[in-house]
Amino acid sequence: MRRTSFADMNCSIAQSLEAVGEWWTLLILRDAMMGVTRFDQFQARLGIARNVLTTRLQSLVDHGILAEVQYQERPPRFEYVLTAKGGELWTVLTMLRQWGDRWSAPAGVPVEAVHDACGHVTRARLVCSECGEPLRGGELTLRHGPGAPEGGVLPA
Amino acid sequence: MRRTSFADMNCSIAQSLEAVGEWWTLLILRDAMMGVTRFDQFQARLGIARNVLTTRLQSLVDHGILAEVQYQERPPRFEYVLTAKGGELWTVLTMLRQWGDRWSAPAGVPVEAVHDACGHVTRARLVCSECGEPLRGGELTLRHGPGAPEGGVLPA
Repeated sequence: MRRTSFADMNCSIAQSLEAVGEWWTLLILRDAMMGVTRFDQFQARLGIARNVLTTRLQSLVDHGILAEVQYQERPPRFEYVLTAKGGELWTVLTMLRQWGDRWSAPAGVPVEAVHDACGHVTRARLVCSECGEPLRGGELTLRHGPGAPEGGVLPA
Repeated sequence: MRRTSFADMNCSIAQSLEAVGEWWTLLILRDAMMGVTRFDQFQARLGIARNVLTTRLQSLVDHGILAEVQYQERPPRFEYVLTAKGGELWTVLTMLRQWGDRWSAPAGVPVEAVHDACGHVTRARLVCSECGEPLRGGELTLRHGPGAPEGGVLPA
């Protein structure tokens, strides 16, 4: 069996990748989170071919991650703004940025994040929603949840 | 300008995507984190073409995310195990899983994670490394860090 889509894989990671699992898509979202909204801005910042950008933006709209908002009537012009669903991807991008900072930024981090509330340069840490203690990768045990189908994906 | 690689973009997200920015790669890593190590196991679980899997595994080895370990001499057989660098991607996959759980799992989560230390089903929460308070997406201000080049990527 060869797959061309992950929509039928009952796994939230696969479902997410169906929406955002591609380089350009995540870089478009990175820029959207930095306040970019207009086609020409995305195009200039990313150096992406216009037809590829058009396709990617439409896919993000179709997945409910970006919304098209008209900002000019004549001629009609639209900008792309993050929805609530799209905005929540900041967690994924933050973890990806921090991982890159740690393993692929020998000259120091290119971008740092200041936590507005405390004023310090911050790294996001993961803690348990239940006990509040820091989470480590080896300390999570995965098991079927209420939405698990027959043959759902679990540890080998 | 059209790009075919992101290696020259001085941005840790782009650098990370250079290593892991592709559907299969992240699903291979998902399975590696679930304990899968052998080619035939990956192949059977993912339904991926063997030549594609070979290419993806080699790329992950080249990026230092997986290591090849010989487990049999005659004939020589290798398995693929996560390196420290690869293992730290659990944060990215966890955020991606949780985002998919929230937005693409109407029948309930297919997989849930138990925090071994406290015994509860957990969701990872992001907190500030400096003040310990919960982080929200809109509360981070990005600015150039010590490794920022001329023309580095920043808010629009």
